[in-house]
Amino acid sequence: MVEKVKANCNYSGRVVEGPTNPIVTPLLTDLYQFTMAYAYWKANKHQERAVFDLYFRKNPFGGEYTVFAGLEECIRLIANFKFTEDDISFIRESLPGSCEDGFFDYLRGLDCSEVEVYAIAEGSAVFPKVPLLRIEGPIAVAQLLETPLVNLINFASLVATNAARHRFVAGKSKSLLEFGLRRAQGPDGGLSASKYCYLGGFDATSNVAAGRLFGIPLRGTHSHAFVSSYMSPDEIIDKSLQSADGSSSCEDFVSSVQTWINKIQWSNSLRGSFGETNHSELAAFTSYALAFPRSFLALVDTYDVMRSGIPNFCAVALALNDLGYKAVGIRLDSGDLAYLSCESRKFFSAIEKEFGVPGFGKMGITASNDLNEETLDALNKQGHEVDSYGIGTYLVTCYAQAALGCVFKLVEINNQPRIKLSEDVSKVSIPCKKRSYRLYGREGYPLVDIMTGENEPSPKVGERILCRHPFNESKRAYVVPQQVEELLKCYWPGSSDKPREDLPPLKDIRDSCIKQLERMRPDHMRRLNPTPYKVSVSAKLYDFIHFLWLNEAPVGELQ
Amino acid sequence: MVEKVKANCNYSGRVVEGPTNPIVTPLLTDLYQFTMAYAYWKANKHQERAVFDLYFRKNPFGGEYTVFAGLEECIRLIANFKFTEDDISFIRESLPGSCEDGFFDYLRGLDCSEVEVYAIAEGSAVFPKVPLLRIEGPIAVAQLLETPLVNLINFASLVATNAARHRFVAGKSKSLLEFGLRRAQGPDGGLSASKYCYLGGFDATSNVAAGRLFGIPLRGTHSHAFVSSYMSPDEIIDKSLQSADGSSSCEDFVSSVQTWINKIQWSNSLRGSFGETNHSELAAFTSYALAFPRSFLALVDTYDVMRSGIPNFCAVALALNDLGYKAVGIRLDSGDLAYLSCESRKFFSAIEKEFGVPGFGKMGITASNDLNEETLDALNKQGHEVDSYGIGTYLVTCYAQAALGCVFKLVEINNQPRIKLSEDVSKVSIPCKKRSYRLYGREGYPLVDIMTGENEPSPKVGERILCRHPFNESKRAYVVPQQVEELLKCYWPGSSDKPREDLPPLKDIRDSCIKQLERMRPDHMRRLNPTPYKVSVSAKLYDFIHFLWLNEAPVGELQ
Repeated sequence: MVEKVKANCNYSGRVVEGPTNPIVTPLLTDLYQFTMAYAYWKANKHQERAVFDLYFRKNPFGGEYTVFAGLEECIRLIANFKFTEDDISFIRESLPGSCEDGFFDYLRGLDCSEVEVYAIAEGSAVFPKVPLLRIEGPIAVAQLLETPLVNLINFASLVATNAARHRFVAGKSKSLLEFGLRRAQGPDGGLSASKYCYLGGFDATSNVAAGRLFGIPLRGTHSHAFVSSYMSPDEIIDKSLQSADGSSSCEDFVSSVQTWINKIQWSNSLRGSFGETNHSELAAFTSYALAFPRSFLALVDTYDVMRSGIPNFCAVALALNDLGYKAVGIRLDSGDLAYLSCESRKFFSAIEKEFGVPGFGKMGITASNDLNEETLDALNKQGHEVDSYGIGTYLVTCYAQAALGCVFKLVEINNQPRIKLSEDVSKVSIPCKKRSYRLYGREGYPLVDIMTGENEPSPKVGERILCRHPFNESKRAYVVPQQVEELLKCYWPGSSDKPREDLPPLKDIRDSCIKQLERMRPDHMRRLNPTPYKVSVSAKLYDFIHFLWLNEAPVGELQ
Repeated sequence: MVEKVKANCNYSGRVVEGPTNPIVTPLLTDLYQFTMAYAYWKANKHQERAVFDLYFRKNPFGGEYTVFAGLEECIRLIANFKFTEDDISFIRESLPGSCEDGFFDYLRGLDCSEVEVYAIAEGSAVFPKVPLLRIEGPIAVAQLLETPLVNLINFASLVATNAARHRFVAGKSKSLLEFGLRRAQGPDGGLSASKYCYLGGFDATSNVAAGRLFGIPLRGTHSHAFVSSYMSPDEIIDKSLQSADGSSSCEDFVSSVQTWINKIQWSNSLRGSFGETNHSELAAFTSYALAFPRSFLALVDTYDVMRSGIPNFCAVALALNDLGYKAVGIRLDSGDLAYLSCESRKFFSAIEKEFGVPGFGKMGITASNDLNEETLDALNKQGHEVDSYGIGTYLVTCYAQAALGCVFKLVEINNQPRIKLSEDVSKVSIPCKKRSYRLYGREGYPLVDIMTGENEPSPKVGERILCRHPFNESKRAYVVPQQVEELLKCYWPGSSDKPREDLPPLKDIRDSCIKQLERMRPDHMRRLNPTPYKVSVSAKLYDFIHFLWLNEAPVGELQ
């Protein structure tokens, strides 16, 4: 079974809790990290100081931005990185051949006190090739971290970006609810999705465990099964309901609902719009209202939205209204959501007018059923009356693109820059321990990210600087930044006494994510043909990359 | 933080461990399961006996079969289903309004002793609409189980099916390695993928945690970073290597490798095929061989496969061969895998011939780099020399279809059948507590699955039975089964003394999965235009479904 590393390490005077999911341990890595660690150890190379960059090469979902997420979980792992004796026995069994004992003693003493982690703030808008994390440390331990760090960041960033994209299409005024747990990729796929969809701008989740672990607001009412579990209103035994202010009591709420359904049926504006409504549905709604009179929200599509669900809902809502309660609204989970939301709105407005119930026309309408970016966009184009969206499968599994390709590349060892070549230029890594900056223009928009060598002077406000495309010599531009933001900050100083950034609460990360995305130039954010955000290197770094490249690449021979 | 429910419940005399992932607790569910539970409790309906079917509606990946997986984790959750006091406080805070105390007392005493679970054996080939699980129990608790059970089965079955499909294209003789942890949907997405890819027919994983938790064979050697972390063979200090039988020792293995690279370069058959190979690569290979002389496998594409990686590998392999060690092979991780594998094979054969090293031509070739069903198929069509595939992203994230749509539908309450209607016929549920059977034909292939009412006599070997499509009246066929297999068996009898099925070890589930898939008629299994496997209901159940349907559906009015 999974053992949770309980030792919460002291992190510059503060305790950093272990990873949220106890299965995240130093064993959650690829076997080759251990075979390499052994080979490094055997060659006495394991303590050589290496620098790795963690970055991705392409924004997901055909867009031009990504939301960076997963950093806190990475730091939690790093702060608590320690092998148990059981872990070590298992590693010993798993390595091929027989490895020397000294290696296992080395693993026994291993932690991340010699590792330093520099990262962009969680929740930031980020772009291809710019390091999200820079890991410095002894090569063997940095290498062991590769798999879990990439794992923790890949999906977190992917699903946060997906959430942000859904928010972008839905608009600021809509309520966005994540309902994906049942269709997620496993239990943690669900839990991570709930966390990072909230980070990316969702308002609430249905996932109770996520609500508890991360303080995300929870939402939920009832399902179709609840409706079909009732046969008729006769089943309801306890029919009494106190008024909202406690001053009076209705002894037979069931009859009151029945009276209302008749009134609606014979009202001037609605007469003939429906016949007999479904009794089991009416029973279920009534029963649910008796349990939650202050938060009555009904799923209205079990039988027929306009001929049964909506009239039944209105009868119960009006009976509640008589007692001073205000119903919350309906949920539509099938059919033509644009049409049904508009028809429902008309029905509610007719009720408001006919029976003089102020605000009834503004009844909340939630829509769900396989929603995604495209369907939200289509709803907007068609016109609808939906106030909230419940989004599941397509959101949490990132159906449109199920993986982000984060990589972890060696850029320096023993102060020597390293480059990874590839026939595919987009896969060539940018060597050297680097700094990166975001340069802002006159209108307050971020203009370009620039990477420089570690010891180059930083770009200065008001000073012209040449920004070059890392691999295309003809692409370059002078920029005079109005604001310069250094992107990589120290989140894990190891045992050094460097200052370190706080890990902010999820709510704050969410707020800053929303703010940052709003600050981007709109053409980078649009769904159709967005403009790529520019990522560049300094002139000096450019020259160095190409010097190294020529140096390392074999000269071909055409035959 | 997550608390793990430690109490391992007694399950018909045996202890059932808790879920593998400690985040799987009764709180890992949707909030509406609790609002419904409260409404049921308030209406004193919570103990009504309900029957739910868990099934999917469509096979994934454009195929005509699905591998059922996730059952053991469901039973582990059910066997240990219990709320802690902290859970209960959190539920109390999370429910809207103020709920009565009695409900929380009810939750406090809740477990799954009154629940019974019938399921198809894990690892079976399964088909749309046929229940994978039938859950019977008090409606409130059965409803609470909906979300976690669907979650645990959806991804498990999806990824197991994906693995089986990859195996089908790769062929039986190839070795299939799952390398997906870093790109998976979160830590558990990786762990679940490793488990269920093995179940679906993979041979090994790179995921060390999965190896430990599930006993899956582990594989892995080294990465590109390992190669580029070396500068030159001069770095290697300890150059000695004992021979495989311990009888002698080579004092300078580095020189021995150097000698071999020169020999290869000037050999008759290979002369001119490459120039100077990359020194840092040769150093890395040599160092790796010194650490793992018995299992030397090298990644050969860091610089240039044919001009550097392959000659360097051969030099090290030949130096190892001098000492009685047999190298394992190479891994190709970029470029044209078909072409490079064939060229590598030719090189190995030339070495075998030129230097008289028997078996060298049969050197193992592993290929990786964004492989999926399509690329495996393309490799087969083109012709290749690959022995093993390392498959990651597309496999573990189920990129081609990131979710399976399992649902959990109420089919009976208080012995009354329930049907869920929908304008979309494929979404209408099949009512009643049912039995299901797989009928086999003369050639030993499964012919059809049939569902019957619970009390109907079971189909008999040699007796003609009418199998009807559940919703299409014209589709029906007589079948004379040669073998009849009842599909649903009791895996969780609650506190009843019904006999129950064992939960077999993962290895056995894998074996039976492979056997079952091999037993299917080939036209159901093929990638292009597979024939749908037939799923049917008995004549009696057919009539009953349609009686109920007409009874519940409102009659429309065209206006």
